[in-house]
Amino acid sequence: MLTFSTSIRVRYGETDQMGFCYYGNYAQFLEVGRVEALRSCGFSYKELESQGILLPVRSFSIKYVSPAKYDDILEIQTSITKIEGTRIEFSYVVKTSEGILIANAETELVFVSANSLRPIPMPEKFKKLVQKIDGNNK
Amino acid sequence: MLTFSTSIRVRYGETDQMGFCYYGNYAQFLEVGRVEALRSCGFSYKELESQGILLPVRSFSIKYVSPAKYDDILEIQTSITKIEGTRIEFSYVVKTSEGILIANAETELVFVSANSLRPIPMPEKFKKLVQKIDGNNK
Amino acid sequence: MLTFSTSIRVRYGETDQMGFCYYGNYAQFLEVGRVEALRSCGFSYKELESQGILLPVRSFSIKYVSPAKYDDILEIQTSITKIEGTRIEFSYVVKTSEGILIANAETELVFVSANSLRPIPMPEKFKKLVQKIDGNNK
Amino acid sequence: MLTFSTSIRVRYGETDQMGFCYYGNYAQFLEVGRVEALRSCGFSYKELESQGILLPVRSFSIKYVSPAKYDDILEIQTSITKIEGTRIEFSYVVKTSEGILIANAETELVFVSANSLRPIPMPEKFKKLVQKIDGNNK
Repeated sequence: MLTFSTSIRVRYGETDQMGFCYYGNYAQFLEVGRVEALRSCGFSYKELESQGILLPVRSFSIKYVSPAKYDDILEIQTSITKIEGTRIEFSYVVKTSEGILIANAETELVFVSANSLRPIPMPEKFKKLVQKIDGNNK
Repeated sequence: MLTFSTSIRVRYGETDQMGFCYYGNYAQFLEVGRVEALRSCGFSYKELESQGILLPVRSFSIKYVSPAKYDDILEIQTSITKIEGTRIEFSYVVKTSEGILIANAETELVFVSANSLRPIPMPEKFKKLVQKIDGNNK
Repeated sequence: MLTFSTSIRVRYGETDQMGFCYYGNYAQFLEVGRVEALRSCGFSYKELESQGILLPVRSFSIKYVSPAKYDDILEIQTSITKIEGTRIEFSYVVKTSEGILIANAETELVFVSANSLRPIPMPEKFKKLVQKIDGNNK
Repeated sequence: MLTFSTSIRVRYGETDQMGFCYYGNYAQFLEVGRVEALRSCGFSYKELESQGILLPVRSFSIKYVSPAKYDDILEIQTSITKIEGTRIEFSYVVKTSEGILIANAETELVFVSANSLRPIPMPEKFKKLVQKIDGNNK
């Protein structure tokens, strides 16, 4: 497993009238987490798209453990757990800066051709990542 | 199972540069689905809150089957699948108005006291719903 | 002036911890208002885009008069106030279903070529709208 | 004028199918700008709220000069332009990290009592800020 960490601060507009961060905003936080994880591995998601490769989310699941509050700094620990064939999987741990567990989540994404919108094999450059992950998992 | 249907139209601001509805917006669509489902059963979520009862989401999972596009009218079929103790579960089928399956999802919510932020037994009025669900499941 | 009315219901995810609809969500409500206003005039914004014409917002101003609350049904009265050269202007009045004034707003949009991203003269079909507006303003 | 600078990176979910940052997201960026500007002056907006003082936006206007794109780092220069009676005004310049002007904006906010929801005079601590602004404006 390759794990990376990035931080975001909960914006006022991301709270709801319960006084907590709205449950629907985490999808965006996780997007930030995995984009930064890929950047740490030398991949710019922006560049990937400019080469005609899209990475839509195929499935997403999340458990909300504690509510996050306005102005909290959340640490998003993102792990690339699997790259295989046309798919890439990420898992996430979201914590406050004091270490309180906020949420656990997982997403599965698919490499897709921007032209055909059909799944395509992962780009060559990603294969090195696979080896790193396999190495770490042993 | 009690099933209800509500429609939303994908807004321009809900698309992303892939040209599809952003994966993070579905959480809000499902929220609309379950609020309207509860309203159909005679429950106003707004009223519930004014009585000191919150219903935060505890877990959420979704599978994206086909992408939704700008201006699509999405039908959200919401089922109340379980009410037990302090929890209520919903499942959702999202389709276009032409019947194309967009997504399947599930959420688990908890009845929580607004004062203590601790789980509380479901309000009395909900017990009738339990009976209806049990009756339908037989 | 040509005026059209459309309704939206404030979603839970659109509130903030002040207990009101977040000020940043109105931009999306107004987008719904003008898309529906154009649809009433026989223009599908979606179709416009598929013909290579974009309509980005050039300026936007809003006065918040009263706060909107969760579950409020807001009526958005959208007027096309000006179409001239490469620009189209809309003004908006947002009210609750009980008639309480929530906000007044204005936006200016530009007809832009999707290819060049440069302003282009309004499409021919819009010229009839200009005449209607001029007729009404007399 | 007191001016402060903060940066945000445009998220994927903040783009729309035009391929640019959606016009409605800037309200949230400006919120981040002014919260950080206040923090630089020694004011935590979170603390202000916990003392029963709200700061809702009363008016907001923005001119979009160039479109921002996905993954752009935007610098938000926030100036406190006026504090008087019950109101505080901010102006904003949004630029890319390469210095391209993206937008100019202004907001007017009101000090409001969380209990009565009525305007209240600015808190004592803000009066020092007034003097600084007046000093700088001379």
